[in-house]
Formats: sequence, C-alpha cells, structure tokens
Amino acid sequence: MTSPVTTPNGSRIYPEPLPPKAEDVESLDVWGFEDTRFSVNPNGHAVLLGHRYELSGQELPRLLPWVRDVLGIELDPRDVHESSYPTSIAPPRENAPFRTEISQFLSDGQITDAGRLRLRHGHGHSQDEMFAIKHERLERIPDLVVFPESDEQVAQLIAAAKRHDVVLIPFGGGTNVTGALRCDADEERMIVSVDMHRMGSVVWIDRANQMACIRAGAVGRNINAQLAAQGLTMGHDPDSVEFSTLGGWIATNASGMKKNKYGNIEDLVLDVTVATANGKLERATCVPRESIGSDLRRLLFGSEGTLGIITSAIVKVFPLPEVETYGSVVFPTLADGIAFMRELARESTPPSSVRLVDNAQFKFGMALKTADTGLKIWKSRLEQFVVVNLKGFKPDQMVVCTLVFEGTRRDVARQQSEVYRLAKKHGGMQAGAENGRRGYQLTYSIAYIRDFLMDFYIIAESFETSAAWSDVFPLISNVKKRLEAEYAARRLPGKVFVTARVTQVYQTGAAIYFYFGFYYKGVPHPSQVYNELEAIAREEILRSGGSLSHHHGVGKVRRSFLPEVMSPAALEWKRELKRSLDPANIFGSGNQKW
Amino acid sequence: MTSPVTTPNGSRIYPEPLPPKAEDVESLDVWGFEDTRFSVNPNGHAVLLGHRYELSGQELPRLLPWVRDVLGIELDPRDVHESSYPTSIAPPRENAPFRTEISQFLSDGQITDAGRLRLRHGHGHSQDEMFAIKHERLERIPDLVVFPESDEQVAQLIAAAKRHDVVLIPFGGGTNVTGALRCDADEERMIVSVDMHRMGSVVWIDRANQMACIRAGAVGRNINAQLAAQGLTMGHDPDSVEFSTLGGWIATNASGMKKNKYGNIEDLVLDVTVATANGKLERATCVPRESIGSDLRRLLFGSEGTLGIITSAIVKVFPLPEVETYGSVVFPTLADGIAFMRELARESTPPSSVRLVDNAQFKFGMALKTADTGLKIWKSRLEQFVVVNLKGFKPDQMVVCTLVFEGTRRDVARQQSEVYRLAKKHGGMQAGAENGRRGYQLTYSIAYIRDFLMDFYIIAESFETSAAWSDVFPLISNVKKRLEAEYAARRLPGKVFVTARVTQVYQTGAAIYFYFGFYYKGVPHPSQVYNELEAIAREEILRSGGSLSHHHGVGKVRRSFLPEVMSPAALEWKRELKRSLDPANIFGSGNQKW
Repeated sequence: MTSPVTTPNGSRIYPEPLPPKAEDVESLDVWGFEDTRFSVNPNGHAVLLGHRYELSGQELPRLLPWVRDVLGIELDPRDVHESSYPTSIAPPRENAPFRTEISQFLSDGQITDAGRLRLRHGHGHSQDEMFAIKHERLERIPDLVVFPESDEQVAQLIAAAKRHDVVLIPFGGGTNVTGALRCDADEERMIVSVDMHRMGSVVWIDRANQMACIRAGAVGRNINAQLAAQGLTMGHDPDSVEFSTLGGWIATNASGMKKNKYGNIEDLVLDVTVATANGKLERATCVPRESIGSDLRRLLFGSEGTLGIITSAIVKVFPLPEVETYGSVVFPTLADGIAFMRELARESTPPSSVRLVDNAQFKFGMALKTADTGLKIWKSRLEQFVVVNLKGFKPDQMVVCTLVFEGTRRDVARQQSEVYRLAKKHGGMQAGAENGRRGYQLTYSIAYIRDFLMDFYIIAESFETSAAWSDVFPLISNVKKRLEAEYAARRLPGKVFVTARVTQVYQTGAAIYFYFGFYYKGVPHPSQVYNELEAIAREEILRSGGSLSHHHGVGKVRRSFLPEVMSPAALEWKRELKRSLDPANIFGSGNQKW
Repeated sequence: MTSPVTTPNGSRIYPEPLPPKAEDVESLDVWGFEDTRFSVNPNGHAVLLGHRYELSGQELPRLLPWVRDVLGIELDPRDVHESSYPTSIAPPRENAPFRTEISQFLSDGQITDAGRLRLRHGHGHSQDEMFAIKHERLERIPDLVVFPESDEQVAQLIAAAKRHDVVLIPFGGGTNVTGALRCDADEERMIVSVDMHRMGSVVWIDRANQMACIRAGAVGRNINAQLAAQGLTMGHDPDSVEFSTLGGWIATNASGMKKNKYGNIEDLVLDVTVATANGKLERATCVPRESIGSDLRRLLFGSEGTLGIITSAIVKVFPLPEVETYGSVVFPTLADGIAFMRELARESTPPSSVRLVDNAQFKFGMALKTADTGLKIWKSRLEQFVVVNLKGFKPDQMVVCTLVFEGTRRDVARQQSEVYRLAKKHGGMQAGAENGRRGYQLTYSIAYIRDFLMDFYIIAESFETSAAWSDVFPLISNVKKRLEAEYAARRLPGKVFVTARVTQVYQTGAAIYFYFGFYYKGVPHPSQVYNELEAIAREEILRSGGSLSHHHGVGKVRRSFLPEVMSPAALEWKRELKRSLDPANIFGSGNQKW
C-alpha cells in the first residue's frame, strides 16, 4: 500500500488515556454498575440504590402498585425468587498446545480461566441468558478469556487459533440481547473469548477534519468523556452507551438515540480495521466517500463476530452543540403521535432525538415518578386536570413524545418552532422540557428494572423491528393483539404486559421497540415460554411488514428466521461468504447460522 | 420467504410506461443525442447544433480563442483529425449451443450481432475508448448483444451462460469512464453484452412511504419524467443523468450533483434485486433500516458487473421542491472558496448542490458565453469592472461557486441567508442566480465538447478523487504541478490544460474533479500518453491523501492501483468473495481484477 505523505498529522491530537475509575465496577450477575440496583424499602416502596443516576436514592411509591396493576397480580415484596447465581460453571476444556503458544506473546495477566469471568463472557443480556445464570444454567461457556493489548496480539491469537483449531469469540461490552455471546452447546473445540477492553483508547483526534481513530474496545462512556474534553462528540448514544464498545456497535450495526442528527453507526464510521483469518483488513487513506468496488468494510457492520475481530475504526466527530435542550408533547392517541412523527421525519431537520411511547409506557413513566409533596402534588394534579378535563385527552389513550434538540441557539429555536407547529397540527400539546429530559435520562436507570423484577417472578425483555410508515400502526396493533391472545390461550397468570415505542424515524419508515413481560410464578420453564411467545411476536412482525431487527441484530435468538427474510440465493451467498473468508470457522460463535 | 400481508399496496401507483420519443436517438460514435453536436460556423465561431439545450443554436465566439489561449496552440478549424469510425469491427465469436439455448426464450428481436451495436456495447466514454473507435481499434468487443425483458429471462441467460461457459457483461447507459465495458483482449470465451434498456419501467410508486420500485435499465431522464408526473423526484442527478441507468448507478456507486439534499446512490437505494450465478438475491420486506447481519446487498454498490446483474431496486422518492433556485458566489482565490465550502459542509443543511470551480474553469465558463450585444455587453463589462477594479478580485485568481437551493420558500430563504453570510466571511461576493443556473445547466452541453475537440487533435478527459478537507487544496495544487512538470519534461506541444473543481462536500472532506487535456498533433499514440499522464496524476493523488475514485469507479482504468489502497488481506478477501459468488467467472468483465 502507498502511504500518503500529506495526511494531516499536524492537526492530530493524541489524548492521554483515561485513568480507570474505581467506582466503575460492573456487576457480573445483573445489568450495570455494581453500585446501582433497585430494592424495596421497609415501607414497601421501590428505591434505586446508589447515587449515579437522577433516580438514584429516590423512593418510587407508584412503581410496585403499577406492576401489580398492569400484570393483574398480587406482588408481595417478601416473596422473592432467590437468584442462585452462579448456578453452575462448566470446567474449561483444555487445548494445551494453544495455551502454550499464546503464553509466548500474552502475559499471565492477559489470560484467565476464572469461572465467573468465563461465565460472564458467555452471555449478553437477553432474558433467557440472565434467567439461566440465576435459575438454570448455561450449558457451554468460554474455556478461556484473553485480553489482547495490540493489533499484533490479536493477529497472533488468530494465527494460534487457526493452528490449533480453536474458536474465537470477540467480546465488547457484553450487552447484546441476541445471544450473540452464548456458546453453541455442541461446539467441541476450545472456545476463547477475546475481551477487547484493553484496546480501548482514543488513538488520535483530527480536529481539522472532524475525525477520530478509536480502538474497538473503547467503551461508549469513555469515548464520550475523552471527546468531550476536546469539545467534541461522536453523537452515538445507544441505550447501552455506558457499557457497550465501538467494536460492538459496528458488529451489531447499532443505532443511537440521536441518530437524526449524527446518523447510525454505519453513517458515523469512516473506516474499519479488522483482523481476519487471512490477515489485516485495512486501507491506505480515510476519505469521506469513494467508489472503489464493493466495500468489504461494510460487511463488518452486523457481522456479530463471525468474520473477524474489529480492532479500530475511524469515526466522525462533531463539535459539542452550543445548546442541548429537551421537549415533550402529548397526543390524544398513538395514531396521532405516529402521524406527527411521520410528517416530522420528512422535514429536512428533525431534532436529534424523537421518541414516541404508547399509553402503557406513558403510564410506566408516571409510575417512575418520585414521591411528591405539597405544592408539587397540587401542581401536578392541576396539570393533569387541565389535560384530561379541559383539553379532552383520555388517560387511557394519550401518548407522549420526548424530544432532544441540539445545535446553535438559533437552530434549536427554529427546530422547536417547526416541531411544535407540526405537533399542534396533529392534536399534540406541549408537555414541557422537564418531562422530555426525564424521559430521555430514564433510559439508563430503567435498564436496571429487568433484574429487579426477575426477583419477583417477572420476566420481561425488549424486542424491536423497523417498518414502512404505513405499516407502523397496524404492526404495533397486530403484535399486541397476538401476544394477548396467545397469552390468554396458554392460561398463564394474570395479564401480559406489552408496550411499544417508536424510537427512530426515517423518511420511509420507523423503528419500533417493544417491551413484553409477564408474571411466571408457578409457570414451568418461564424463560422458554417467553422465547416461544417472542418468536410468535416475530412471526407477527414479519407478517405485518416489519424487519427481523432494526438494531439489536440476529445473533442466535433470531437466526432461525433468516430463511423467512432472505431468498435461498441470498442465504447461499451468505454461506459462501463466510466459508470463503473464514474456512476453518475460527470465528465460530454460530451467530446468523440458520 | 414470508410474504408480508400488510405491505401498503393500497397506496401504490403503477404508472403507464413512457412512450419512446423518436427524437431521443443516441449517437454511436460520440457522446449524447444524435441531434446535438458542436460545430464551427463559416465565421470561425463554435456553435452547438440542435435545439435541446439552452446553449443549442448559439454562437460561442470566445470558445476557440480560449482553446488556443489555454493550450498555447494555433488551432485551425479547417485542420480536422477526421474520424475513421468504425475503424474495425472484429467478427463475432460463436458459441452455437449457447445461441441455440437462448433462442428458446428470447425472440429474434432480442438478440443481435450487428457490428456497430456490438462495438457500442464494448466501450464507455473514456478518452481512450473514444479515441480507439475513431482512430485506432478495440481489439475485443462483445460477440452478441441481448435485450432481456424480464427477471426470468435474465435468470435464464445466466443459466445458459453457466452451462456453455459464456461471459455476461451487463450494459446500462454505456456512459462509464473507467473502461468497465471494455472487453479484455485475452478473453477467449464468447462475450455477451446484456443490454438492460428494455427493463426500464417504473414498476410502482408508493407515495405514502415515499418509495418507488424501478427496474434497473431505467434511464435517468425517464425516471425523472415519470416521477415528476406524480410530483416526485428521486433527486439523483449525476452529470450523465440523461443516459445512465439506475442499475449503472448502483454498479458504479454513483454520486449525484444534489447529493447534499438527497444523498448518494447508496443513501437513495433501499433494496436491490440481483440475478447472480446462484439465483436471485431478494428480500421479503423493504424497511428503512435494519440489522440482520452483513448486508450483502451493499456488495452490489460498486460491483461494476462482476457479481451479478441488478434487475430492479427500491429507491426513496421525494416531493418535488416548492422552490428550486440558483445562486453563485465569486471568491478571491481557490483557498478562500475551499475554506467556505468546508465551513458550509458542516452546517446542518448545505444547499442541494454546491460546486466550486477553479480559476481555469471559471474562465472556461466565460468562454462559453454567447455573443453579447448592446446593453448586455455594457452590463457585463460594468460588472466585470466593479468586481476586478473596485472589489480587488484578480482575474487570474478568482474562482466561482455555483449553488442550487431547493425546498420550501422559507427553507430556501433561510439557506440563502446562511450561505451568503458564510460566503462573505470568506471574502465571497454574490454573482447572481443567473450565473449559478448557467453553471449547473452547462454540465449537460459541456459533455459534448470532448468529441468536438478531438476533431482538432485535442484529447481531454476527467478524473476525480475524494480527500479529507485539509488535503483538498494541497492535493489540487500537487496534481496540477505534477502534470505540468511531466508534460514539459515530455516536450509535448503547447501547454497542458488542467483544472479542478470541488463538486461534493462532506463533513470530513470533499470530492475533487479534474479536467486534463492537451493538443496531440504530431504526438505518437496520444491516447496512451494521456493514460500515462493520468496514471502519474493518480499516483500524485494517492500520495496526497486522495482516494482511488469518488464516484467514477475502478473498472479497468484504475484496477492496477487496487494493491496501493488495500492491504493484502483486503485484496485476498475481495478475490475470495468473487471466487465464491461467481466461481465460473460468468460475470467476467475483468473489472477490478488487479
């Protein structure tokens, strides 16, 4: 390859690596940071322990009553489904020649077969994996975890894996909800999890060209912090941004909450460097756009660890916005809200984030309100009175849209005026910046609720899709009805909970995100029941014109559906592609293997 | 595959096919429509014959004097390098069993071995191909041209080609400038050009979801006409839009002049249906965005006919803008203009089109002015006087940027105010809507000049690249200096002409488009000399941080450079990919074969 001489090294900043923060320890058995979890106070009120989030330390008196109400159950906080984590940890399989070889270039501190670490590297955060590590078992987990520190070590690992017929599974944040890290039970080769966290630095920032080179193991919160120190942002804000990594974003073809302004991961990444079974995929220059044949780098987006290990990427960076402000609008019905979003999506500049939650999720948001006192209660009651009685909004039908505006003061003012004009046209009423801010920020603390509820025999999880605009409303409605009917037919306890939000807008359609959960006390194999119902929901989604996934990916949870969405020739291409690029199936995670 | 039931067929329009226009006959031996070509009047002034374009029928008294001036030559309009088109037409190679088989499913009118048609299907519009058909020869051309009319016929053609070891080369508009259609001289198999024009209809338009399904052989001008009849546009406006096809745009990874508003072809295309050696690649649904594994459809972008035949695509469509208006700004120097564009690119909404031409091209634009009379001359002289004498612009340094604004009245007003504010900041002065409109529209008539000048021993052609912002100015400067030096060192006649424009802006960089030409009378093998010099320019581009191509592609002209821009492993992937998807090399055009 030619090395260009005039690449603007002069304008590059090489930032200091971030010192690790002692408090940022992540839990092994549940979502998130160790310092944060939901609990129940002696007065029976839920509370989020810790001090990390806005909700932290606050009593949430309405949360458990809301759970009882929507699931139609008598939830007793003392009746706990005790976690048996770790239920069992399979002993590691050995491949002595491989281990000997990698000891030549990795230090002892870069190799571990500690049980709990191997276990943690064998799953993401899908409900069935979390249920398994607490109440059942993962049949097969990685036999070894390694922590490479350089591209060269990654290449050496791949060479060793080829020589000794070992499976490599790249590990980023471990936050996927597709079973992408779960090991296939019938894999007889040694499985090695390649944990990328030590390759987590921002290598350089090129301010003149608004690009940065970042190593694949960099965690979202650290990327944000390092760029913010330079007055910059990557603008990629998936729900998991605190834990997920750049490499993981690319491998799952991720989408961030602010994609309207910054784009999805495929729009943000300009170049990818990848270690493959045949060597290093890399390029001589990083230009904004080109036409030089089929872009092989694009194959890495959504590859879920099956084609190689992404080691670094060059991404776009943007100046931090002058203003970041929130907003919210209530609409009489979901259909009104969707009509608003559709029109908004076709304006040239919809705000950075626009998310519409249905009535059930609107009420969930209310259930997460903290204990109010005095004047605040009066104000809140008065507002509710006005909305419901004077404006004619129906409490069981109204929905809310949260908004994030970013830009110059003038841009933001302009966007706000345009958004609220359209909202009004569709029967919307402004519900204030505070509700918008809260809705956006809640994303991070809500993620902890899944494990909290599992303590009380409640299993819940999200799944998502994308669809053309005219399919959005019917699809949501079909999926809800279908799940309700299937749930009733199985005579399962109480009521099923299913709710949707529209999270991303595009000119031609939108992304739809569902939560689905139920009370499982007395139900045999609840996790399996959940999976069956989710599969039925997926059939309904496909039948309704939706995609297999908008941004979660395929992994193992959805791999059996591939033949339903791709023609036989497309599947054959996919198979051939994998066979030709990784003939020994070193990257044998089994994702997307239908 | 699952067939979704709720796809919004209700909102689909199935437009009537366009009746062919008798006057839209294309030339075989030169660029464009038969009714249009440049000529010299008895008074020695150039004129564009025909009535199709704004420039048509107008005398251009300044054009030939300008040519003489920039090339430093005595051009005599009577001294013509007569075209010997068609210099030679190789007899077709036969593959009787193949021909027998395809006669089973294609009518006689769908198969031809007529010499001139075979010749026309064996080249695009690069200078060496056009020089060859007029003054040298194409050693190898297709042996047969077929005109399939359905996806089924395309599939049958591929099956027959596999059975009888025949090469298929898909043919769209034949406007490429990469040698993509040129047949490798050492190809011994029968070569069949698959002309897609009869698969040129708009299948459906889905107004509700702003999508349209269009067959791959549809020509840009017809797509525009059919969509405009519904108040819609695809917004894709490459220089070749009158002749190039949707399938060709995808296969070359094309870029349109209005990409700021509508996106490049990869942004506009939502789904692609492709006939491959292994069957039909297609999908069940068309959603705005998804994460379902490596997106194999993306491999078709830039595939240049090497992986299969694109038969149709679903594209985004947009309402026609309420307002379309033009603008232009002059800047004191190229560096000022580039600084302006860079800042503009980072605003959230740069106008639909922003193109900056250097001083040489600015003067070329002046040379294309028609004969002025009376008041018009005075006005024009007065304006020039003001710009040059009062505002201090230097005639040999100033550059001009042309602008196209589209949107609502309010959007356009807002964009104009923002653009002119930034322009002023960088020393720019508004030069009027008329100059902007003229600059944009000239694109289509300028394309005819290449063949006109070749009649007078002048060879000229374009090549392009993309680069990070900080490389843009140095790259342009390096390439110009290098070509001037190499030209002088070869003691070639007169002066070399080399000029650049910045045609596309991105957050991180821009596309740069060069014209390069010289007078070749008395020079042996001028086309080869041109190629040698262009290759040197390309080396200089790569050394200066530029890409191998922004939107022209690789084809055969740039295939030898691939090892300079991709790592050995990336090349190996590319090779494996081709081998696995087309093992018999049915799609054996040889493009991108390094």
